[in-house]
Amino acid sequence: MASTSPDRPRLTRKGAATRARIVDAAAELIFQHGVTRTTIEEVRDSAKVSNSQLYHYFEDKPALVRAVIERQADRAIGTQEQFDLSSLDGLHAWRNFVVDHARDTGGRGGCPIGSLGAALAETEPEARALVAASFDRWEASIMAGLQRMHTLGRIAPEADARQLALATLAALEGGLLLAQVQRDPEPLAAALDAMLTLIATLSGTTSRG
Amino acid sequence: MASTSPDRPRLTRKGAATRARIVDAAAELIFQHGVTRTTIEEVRDSAKVSNSQLYHYFEDKPALVRAVIERQADRAIGTQEQFDLSSLDGLHAWRNFVVDHARDTGGRGGCPIGSLGAALAETEPEARALVAASFDRWEASIMAGLQRMHTLGRIAPEADARQLALATLAALEGGLLLAQVQRDPEPLAAALDAMLTLIATLSGTTSRG
Repeated sequence: MASTSPDRPRLTRKGAATRARIVDAAAELIFQHGVTRTTIEEVRDSAKVSNSQLYHYFEDKPALVRAVIERQADRAIGTQEQFDLSSLDGLHAWRNFVVDHARDTGGRGGCPIGSLGAALAETEPEARALVAASFDRWEASIMAGLQRMHTLGRIAPEADARQLALATLAALEGGLLLAQVQRDPEPLAAALDAMLTLIATLSGTTSRG
Repeated sequence: MASTSPDRPRLTRKGAATRARIVDAAAELIFQHGVTRTTIEEVRDSAKVSNSQLYHYFEDKPALVRAVIERQADRAIGTQEQFDLSSLDGLHAWRNFVVDHARDTGGRGGCPIGSLGAALAETEPEARALVAASFDRWEASIMAGLQRMHTLGRIAPEADARQLALATLAALEGGLLLAQVQRDPEPLAAALDAMLTLIATLSGTTSRG
């Protein structure tokens, strides 16, 4: 589910690799230290590129940050789409993957998209809009699984897949934020378990908890 | 539910008022522009105090930010405690208040505590711990309402008040973040409605949605 930027110039294979290396380095630094504390010089050094290379691909820091948002959204949604959210088993497997990851990292960094949204929402309108679009894509991806539950007759017809998808994404984001601040995966587990219990109730079965 | 800092010097009435004016000014600037973009000079000018006054109460910016975290936590928890979370009606009234506020503000600023947590978690360990303690207090306050539901026999005995309180706080935080980024209260409404539906199910009644 790679996103496309119509204004992005066509790159050679080598150019695309260099660009990706810059975006990866920026994503890692931003995830570790936050977007306001990450400088373009640190990204340049970490990616082992020259100033002229970096500015060939990104005219300024906001342009680089936008590329990081798209990269993190592609990754997060791509990871989630490895799970089948149209079954309770698939939802539980996804829940376990996310909670285990938060346990392994002590919650550090929080959600790579949500942290960028919180940091940029009030000062960078273009970045805010791009994070909002990323959340829309993510919500649509969760909703697709819940809609298949409908089609397969696995969930009550009156269950609103869009509202459940929004609530599940909010539970994930709030759970990741609490896990980050408290260095503890338990709030994330509680948030996702609540949604899974609700979905299990709507599907007429009992959640495995 | 005002917090107490044992290391805070006893202040005269005038001193306490000046200190509060500085914290209020800092809280407002941080809420609008984010903590990393707010300078101590801006706070000084906004609070109409001198450098020596400001540094009399706060030795540095981190000390001021810690006071802002405590002030915002006192306010958020105090506001929530105006609602009776031991009844479905009270939970709905709280949900409506929070969603209406997000609608009025277009979600701007997100959660005053959550935004600080996201901004400081990876770089300011003391601030992170203080935000974590604030979330603990908030969770305990929500849990107290749900525990009263137990005592009053309004919710199934097997419902875990702590897990539900954690999940409700996560729904609130994730909903506020999505509402902030999307400038739309709908994700917040969906997140809280999901929790209210779950609690209504556990209480054996149908949520009013």
